[in-house]
Amino acid sequence: MFKSLAVVGATGAVGRIMCRLLESSPVRFEEYRFLASARSVGRTVTFAGRNYPVLELSPESLKGVDLVVSSTPDDVAKAFIPEAVKLGCVVVDESAAWRMDPDVPLVIPEVNPHAAFRHKGIIASPNCSTTQMVVAMKPLHDFGRVQRVVVSTYQAASGAGVGGTHDLVESTKAALQGQSYQGTTFAYPLAFNLIPQIGSPKQQGYTSEELKMVLETRKILGDDSIQICPTCVRVPVANCHSETILVETERKITPEKARELFSSFPGIVVVDDLNAKQYPMPKGCSDRDEVFVGRIREDLSAPHGLVFWCVSDNLRKGAATNAVQIVELLQRGSATSAN
Amino acid sequence: MFKSLAVVGATGAVGRIMCRLLESSPVRFEEYRFLASARSVGRTVTFAGRNYPVLELSPESLKGVDLVVSSTPDDVAKAFIPEAVKLGCVVVDESAAWRMDPDVPLVIPEVNPHAAFRHKGIIASPNCSTTQMVVAMKPLHDFGRVQRVVVSTYQAASGAGVGGTHDLVESTKAALQGQSYQGTTFAYPLAFNLIPQIGSPKQQGYTSEELKMVLETRKILGDDSIQICPTCVRVPVANCHSETILVETERKITPEKARELFSSFPGIVVVDDLNAKQYPMPKGCSDRDEVFVGRIREDLSAPHGLVFWCVSDNLRKGAATNAVQIVELLQRGSATSAN
Repeated sequence: MFKSLAVVGATGAVGRIMCRLLESSPVRFEEYRFLASARSVGRTVTFAGRNYPVLELSPESLKGVDLVVSSTPDDVAKAFIPEAVKLGCVVVDESAAWRMDPDVPLVIPEVNPHAAFRHKGIIASPNCSTTQMVVAMKPLHDFGRVQRVVVSTYQAASGAGVGGTHDLVESTKAALQGQSYQGTTFAYPLAFNLIPQIGSPKQQGYTSEELKMVLETRKILGDDSIQICPTCVRVPVANCHSETILVETERKITPEKARELFSSFPGIVVVDDLNAKQYPMPKGCSDRDEVFVGRIREDLSAPHGLVFWCVSDNLRKGAATNAVQIVELLQRGSATSAN
Repeated sequence: MFKSLAVVGATGAVGRIMCRLLESSPVRFEEYRFLASARSVGRTVTFAGRNYPVLELSPESLKGVDLVVSSTPDDVAKAFIPEAVKLGCVVVDESAAWRMDPDVPLVIPEVNPHAAFRHKGIIASPNCSTTQMVVAMKPLHDFGRVQRVVVSTYQAASGAGVGGTHDLVESTKAALQGQSYQGTTFAYPLAFNLIPQIGSPKQQGYTSEELKMVLETRKILGDDSIQICPTCVRVPVANCHSETILVETERKITPEKARELFSSFPGIVVVDDLNAKQYPMPKGCSDRDEVFVGRIREDLSAPHGLVFWCVSDNLRKGAATNAVQIVELLQRGSATSAN
C-alpha cells in the first residue's frame, strides 16, 4: 500500500483530469501533493474540498512521496523520473519518454495488468491513439490472434494539448470571418482542414506518432509478430480520437462474434446499428472513460479480415484515465480486480 | 462532332462549376442551353459573356440537343435520361442512377477513355470518392496489378451538396457560441465532429457510398478480381475529399517507383516531402482539377503493400471536371489526346 501520491503536471490539460478522476476514485491515499513547473507555482489545486498549493517539481518536493502519477513533456519526464526513482518513488508516467525502455512495463489495466507489477520504479501509460486501438484489439487477439492491422486515425486537436484546442477554435473563428490565422501549435490552420502528419518524421516515411502505434502495440500485447500499417491524421475535431481499424486474424472472427467479444470486455462499449444511424462519434464520447466501437463488419477484401470504427476520449482513456487506472491497480496491489 | 450542348442541373453546386469549366474549355459548341428544375426557371446563366435563360428540364427543352451533361439527383436522372436518349441526345451523367448499368460505360478520361465511345446514349461519371482513388490506382495497377485496396475516407461537407456546406458552417457558428443546431442535410451536427456513415445502409453492414467505391472501381478498371475494403467518414471540412489508400500489388511497387508512376500520369500531382511538411491538404487542393498524392510509403504490414494519402476537390475532379472532360473527349472524337 502506498501512503502518499504526487500528481506531477497537475495544472496541465491531462493533469487536471487526473486530479478529477483521483478525487472520485475509490482508491485513497493518506497524503496528496500537486506538482508542476515553476510557472504554475502560486496557483492552488482544489482536491476533495481542500486547497493545495502547487509545488515546483524538484527532488525536494518529491521527498517522502511513495507513488507519482505524471503527465509532462517527454524531456521533463526523461530528466526527473530517474531522480524520483532514486528517492524511492514509483512513477506512473504518461509521457513517451520511457515507454519503449525494456525495464519499463507499458500498461493498459484491461489488457496487461500483470505487467504493472514487474516494474523497476517506472510504469508507462501508452500513447492515446495506441491505447484505444489496443483495448479494442485485445479481445479479438485473445480469441483469434491478430496478425495484421491497418489503421487510419482521425485525431482531435486536444491531442496536441491546450495549444491545439486553442488553434482549432481560433483558426475556425478566423476562417468563418474570412480572415487568416497564424497557429501556435499546428504547422497549418486546422479549421475545415486535415493535416496528415502527427509527430516528427521518422524512418521509412512514417511519423513518430505512427511508429508509436506499431511499437507500443507489440510491447503491450507481448507479440512482436503483429504487423501494423498506421496513418495518423489530425482532423478539426475538438476532442476524442477516432480510428478505422482493419484486423486480420489467424482464426476468423465474424462480426457477430466480434460484437460478443467486444461487449464482454471491460472498458469497451458497442454502439453498432447502422440502420438506426447508431455508431460512436466524437461528440458523444467526450468525458467518457470507455473505448467505443461500431460499424463492425466483415472485411470485403480478405477472408480473415474484420473492420470497425473506434472512438475514445484521448484525454481520458487515452491519457488521464489509463494512468489513474494504473495507480488504482498498484494501490489495490493485485491485477485480479482490474481484469 | 456535336453541335449543341445542354447543361442539365446548371444552377446546382456541380452544375455551376460545369458551366465555368465549359466556358474556359478549348472545346466549343455552336449552341448552348442551360436546364434545371422548375424552381430555377426565371434565373439566367451568364456564359461566355452572354445571358441565357434557365429552361425547365423537359423533352421540349431537349429537342434538337446533341449532347447533354447532367448533374441532378438520381431519381431525376433515372426518369429523364431515357427520354433524352430517345430524342437522340447523348448524355454524360454525373448521378449514380446509371453507373452500374451494363450498357453504360463508366468513364474517367485519364483511366478508360476508350470506354466512352462504346456508349448506347449514356456515359456515366463515377462517384467522387471513387474517382480520385481510381485515378491514383491506375498507374499502380498498370505497373503492378492491384489485387487489394484498404481505403478510409475523410469526406468534405460539400459532397452532400449546398445543404451540406450550409450545415457545416451553421453548426460550427452555433458550436462556437455554445448553441445547438438542427441540421438539414446531416443526421448529426458535423461541427467539430465525425459521422462514420455516408449514404444509406446496404448489405453486410456497408453503406451505399462504400459499395460504390467497390463496384465502380472494378467496372472502371475492368477487373472484378480487385478486392476493396472501404470505410467512408464525413469530416468537418468544407471542400475536398481525402483518403488513406493501401494497395497490395502482384508486383511489388517501391515508394520511389510509385512516385515515378504517379508523376508521369496525367492529372496526378505528387506533393510528398514529410521532412519539409509537404503533403496534400484540403485547404490547398480546392478549385484544382487534379488528384494530389503524398505520404507515399511502404506498407509496414505486408511485403507487397504501398500506402499513401490522396486529396482531390470532390466538386471538380470528383464531379464537374470529370464530366466536362468526358464531354471534351466525346467532342474531340478520339481517346488519343486524353491519355
